[in-house]
Amino acid sequence: MTTVDIHDIARSAKTFDVRGFYVITPLESQSQLVQRVIRHWVEGRGATYNPTRQAALSLVKVKGSMEEAIGDISRYWKPGVKVVATGARSQRENIGYSQLREIFLASSGPFLLLFGTGWGLTEEVIRNSDYILAPIEGSHYNHLSVRSAAAIILDRLLGWR
Amino acid sequence: MTTVDIHDIARSAKTFDVRGFYVITPLESQSQLVQRVIRHWVEGRGATYNPTRQAALSLVKVKGSMEEAIGDISRYWKPGVKVVATGARSQRENIGYSQLREIFLASSGPFLLLFGTGWGLTEEVIRNSDYILAPIEGSHYNHLSVRSAAAIILDRLLGWR
Repeated sequence: MTTVDIHDIARSAKTFDVRGFYVITPLESQSQLVQRVIRHWVEGRGATYNPTRQAALSLVKVKGSMEEAIGDISRYWKPGVKVVATGARSQRENIGYSQLREIFLASSGPFLLLFGTGWGLTEEVIRNSDYILAPIEGSHYNHLSVRSAAAIILDRLLGWR
Repeated sequence: MTTVDIHDIARSAKTFDVRGFYVITPLESQSQLVQRVIRHWVEGRGATYNPTRQAALSLVKVKGSMEEAIGDISRYWKPGVKVVATGARSQRENIGYSQLREIFLASSGPFLLLFGTGWGLTEEVIRNSDYILAPIEGSHYNHLSVRSAAAIILDRLLGWR
C-alpha cells in the first residue's frame, strides 16, 4: 500500500459515493504511514490547502484485519456485511458486473469490496468471500495497477453514463 | 506528469489494446524523466525484472507538442487523426461514451484521446478537438486522478464486460 494508492482509491471512492475505504494491514509501520497521511489531509495543513482531498481522505480508516473492518462496518453502518473479492484471475464461481450491480440495487447493503495489492488476495480470503467478481477482461494483458482496477470496478458497479 | 502516471496509464492502455501512449510536454526536464523511465523498463534492467511492465511501457513515446504527436501518428499509423478531449468539466458540445464507442467501431481510426494533468487541458486545445468527451459523472465530486480517469474512460470506450 503506497500513499498514491490511498489518495487515488479515496478519490475514486468519493466520486462514486462509497461510504468508507478501509486500508487493512497487520503491519504497524504501514498502519502508521496511512494514519499520518489521513491526519495531514483531514485535520492538518492539507485540509485547508486542498478541501477536495480532505473530502476524499475522510473516507479512509485503517484496520489490522478483515475481522476488525467488518466489525467496524457492523457497528457504524449495519451488520450483515457481504464480502466481494476482486482479482485478475478468473474463477469458476465468478459473478459478473451487471449481476452484482443488480444485487446492490436490490439490497440495503452493506457490501465490502476487497482489493489486494502486490500478489492479490490470498486464497483463503477469496474462498471466504460471499462473491468473487469477474476480472477486468483486456486483451490478454491483466496487469492493471490496483488504483486503476479499483477505479474501473467502482465505475462498473456504481457509475452511470 | 509523474512516473506513477506513466506506469499506470501505460498499463491501462496495454490492457485495452491501445496502440500508443504519447506523453506531450514542452519541458526538457520532464521529457528526459520520461525517456529515462522508458529506457529502464523497455531496454534496461527493468525489462528482465518485469516483462509485463516492459510490454506496457513499450507503448510510451515522448513528444514536445500535440503537432509532433499527430505527425508521428500520421507517419507510423495513418493520417487523419481525430482528436478527443477529455476533462472534468461539462461542455455544451459533449459527446457521450456509447456514441463515441460507435464512432470508434464504424471508423478505421486513428483517434487521439487527450488527458490533461494538473489543471486539465487548455481552452485552446479543447476548442481545436474533434470531440469533447462527457465528464465522468460522480456524486458531485469530480476530482479523480488522471490515472483513474484514464482507466475508466478507456474501459468505457474500449472495454467489454
